[in-house]
Amino acid sequence: MATREFSGPFLLVNFKTYLEATGKRAVELSDKIEAVGRDTGVRVGVAPQFCDIAQVASQVEIPVFAQHVDPMAPGAFTGHVLAESVKAAGAAGTIINHSERTIRLLDIEKSVEHAREVGLATVTCASTARLAAAVALSEPDIVAIEPPELIGSGRAVSKERPELITESVRRIRNVNPNVKILCGAGITTGEDVYAALKLGTQGILVASGVVKAPKPEDVIMDFCQAVRKLE
Amino acid sequence: MATREFSGPFLLVNFKTYLEATGKRAVELSDKIEAVGRDTGVRVGVAPQFCDIAQVASQVEIPVFAQHVDPMAPGAFTGHVLAESVKAAGAAGTIINHSERTIRLLDIEKSVEHAREVGLATVTCASTARLAAAVALSEPDIVAIEPPELIGSGRAVSKERPELITESVRRIRNVNPNVKILCGAGITTGEDVYAALKLGTQGILVASGVVKAPKPEDVIMDFCQAVRKLE
Amino acid sequence: MATREFSGPFLLVNFKTYLEATGKRAVELSDKIEAVGRDTGVRVGVAPQFCDIAQVASQVEIPVFAQHVDPMAPGAFTGHVLAESVKAAGAAGTIINHSERTIRLLDIEKSVEHAREVGLATVTCASTARLAAAVALSEPDIVAIEPPELIGSGRAVSKERPELITESVRRIRNVNPNVKILCGAGITTGEDVYAALKLGTQGILVASGVVKAPKPEDVIMDFCQAVRKLE
Amino acid sequence: MATREFSGPFLLVNFKTYLEATGKRAVELSDKIEAVGRDTGVRVGVAPQFCDIAQVASQVEIPVFAQHVDPMAPGAFTGHVLAESVKAAGAAGTIINHSERTIRLLDIEKSVEHAREVGLATVTCASTARLAAAVALSEPDIVAIEPPELIGSGRAVSKERPELITESVRRIRNVNPNVKILCGAGITTGEDVYAALKLGTQGILVASGVVKAPKPEDVIMDFCQAVRKLE
Repeated sequence: MATREFSGPFLLVNFKTYLEATGKRAVELSDKIEAVGRDTGVRVGVAPQFCDIAQVASQVEIPVFAQHVDPMAPGAFTGHVLAESVKAAGAAGTIINHSERTIRLLDIEKSVEHAREVGLATVTCASTARLAAAVALSEPDIVAIEPPELIGSGRAVSKERPELITESVRRIRNVNPNVKILCGAGITTGEDVYAALKLGTQGILVASGVVKAPKPEDVIMDFCQAVRKLE
Repeated sequence: MATREFSGPFLLVNFKTYLEATGKRAVELSDKIEAVGRDTGVRVGVAPQFCDIAQVASQVEIPVFAQHVDPMAPGAFTGHVLAESVKAAGAAGTIINHSERTIRLLDIEKSVEHAREVGLATVTCASTARLAAAVALSEPDIVAIEPPELIGSGRAVSKERPELITESVRRIRNVNPNVKILCGAGITTGEDVYAALKLGTQGILVASGVVKAPKPEDVIMDFCQAVRKLE
Repeated sequence: MATREFSGPFLLVNFKTYLEATGKRAVELSDKIEAVGRDTGVRVGVAPQFCDIAQVASQVEIPVFAQHVDPMAPGAFTGHVLAESVKAAGAAGTIINHSERTIRLLDIEKSVEHAREVGLATVTCASTARLAAAVALSEPDIVAIEPPELIGSGRAVSKERPELITESVRRIRNVNPNVKILCGAGITTGEDVYAALKLGTQGILVASGVVKAPKPEDVIMDFCQAVRKLE
Repeated sequence: MATREFSGPFLLVNFKTYLEATGKRAVELSDKIEAVGRDTGVRVGVAPQFCDIAQVASQVEIPVFAQHVDPMAPGAFTGHVLAESVKAAGAAGTIINHSERTIRLLDIEKSVEHAREVGLATVTCASTARLAAAVALSEPDIVAIEPPELIGSGRAVSKERPELITESVRRIRNVNPNVKILCGAGITTGEDVYAALKLGTQGILVASGVVKAPKPEDVIMDFCQAVRKLE
């Protein structure tokens, strides 16, 4: 996934370890998300669980992300997630340092570098404006700002904490002019998405707002239409 | 995989994060191992990386194990390995607490219980005789004894540390009369396998001895013939 | 502290990282606890924070415990807690694997062994009956059973979950006939202590019930009188 | 310790968990280091183990640092190291994220903030130039650059990897013009110290080079004279 090459907004759906998006349901949900992306012309991606990456990636053409990779190179490491393995399964990229899977600062840098070497795009997460700048220094493809207290809350970061986003954008741009910036946490409506883009981000990272919705395709359609409205 | 139902020896090959057993090569290696198992009538299994489980499980009929599962139930946990996901991908079981992925005592118990609930067999590892008994108390299907200092050494635990195995078997049997016992570390020849079985184990857990061999199928054949010799 | 030598009940007060028991207040609280122990003839001990061990141990004669030790031997380990350091500061023992500081199974065994080598008594904690037996296999001086959900709840484990205690005692005795057994969580009255001893334990591990009480000396007196009633 | 107020070079000696600097020997070594600092007029500090902080701080007037603090506020946290406790014991500051005690990025920020609130100066460590800039964003009082592969090697970072230091200084200054910069790893002679200062740092962080020396006072004298030479 040549993330640096496309310039439009990006909506990434994190499947977490929700049963609603495990196994066959991961494939079905990915199909729906891809269909809406195709219909609206908005760039969308999915981040299923490790065991589902291969199956999902073989079924859809939108970029598939791992939710995490371990920082090590191939070798005698049982039970770890190798960037090479994620890549071989068909992933285009990986999330790093999600607030539900935070890692040591040193490992953020190692993971970004190792992912880049094997050809995976990186979405590195941070929970505060200052940390967003710190992770931007590692030069991932994308920085995602997510205040943990709003994750899964239904209260959108773009409306509840707009100053966090503008402050993050400002601090990130101080140290890295090119990285793509997503925001997330509590996003459930197209209005939330619209607000996020207006604040200077290039897209959103969403999970329960889509995955746990009665009709995920309707939510993602609402999101994509909000993106269109802006263009 | 109804591990409690089969009584013969069991050879489990851990693919770790070796490039030689990643992606397509995981499937190819699994095919070879299955073929030898079929030809010799010896029960064999494989433990590929998470991303390879689905593909491997769809190609072979021998039991496929995850190398690790996280202890949590489904929910908002990004980047974790759900037992339900491993099961949905077609795995028959999972390794727990491998010496390269040790976990807290509390999580060993939780992981074994959660794996059992979703229908995964469990191979819980320990590095000393005393720890082998401690993990046997959680009532996994299999306990595997592996002294870390011999892992990947080419010096077989069954020949270098026979007293560790007999002592482990003794201590495990004190607290759990039924659990299947494997041993591992440094196993590279059929002779090593034979020695392990003679010491009271019901099989072996092997990794580099097979995966890194120039001809893995020859090594696994040597192992299986050693098993046959005993019966 | 020759824990194996004394046979009566033991009350251990864990100061945790409560401000009420930090710095000078750790010394003052230890003084009060010692005074009640002396007056009633009941064996009591305290577990202050690392930085307070030396000062507390120089002021009181009752045994002082660390709340944790790291499993390593002396060397190039910055920011870790060496058993040798805890011992040099005057501690008689250490808590291991408290539910607020759980460690890997392997490290429980290492910590107990290393503590024994340097002459520290060990209180190893477990949250379930089965785990209590597992830690008893490492042969610490004391096993403490504490269900985390009752810690700090004010609902005493000895009254809310008596079956957990009897089941733990039974399972521990199956594998280790000599280890002293404490229980804890939610203990706030002498009646709770009395109930704990009647269920087959040899004492209690208490924290907020004493440390956060308006008059800790009254609570510990209530506990000690309950112990006396039994003898 | 008003680190922002003094402008001269600073030499900080990390005692790690070396037996040579545990208990009484921590006090003796601190005495010697203080004496040399006094005689030469060079600012020196020591970082003993947690259990030794109170005793050392009561014996010397030079600043005493903890080797680590945990990020939490006071409360029900057994076996953790509270900034408040370190402060109450007499410490002037704390090391954070040493390469032998690395922490999550999020916890670096929390630890620096919490330390500042309780009045502790902070020395935050990083192993690469980029990470040095990332930790400088948290606005600690001091950033220390230490490539782990040279720690304890006897090959001084200031001579083996001068470009790492100049690159770190450059990157740090891009994001934080005021933070004091130390470097460390392999420093054993005054010449190494001189080289470090010439490269734009304001001092060094040293451990085995002093602690494991036959005559630590001679080494620290050599270091301090090198500092004097520059002024």
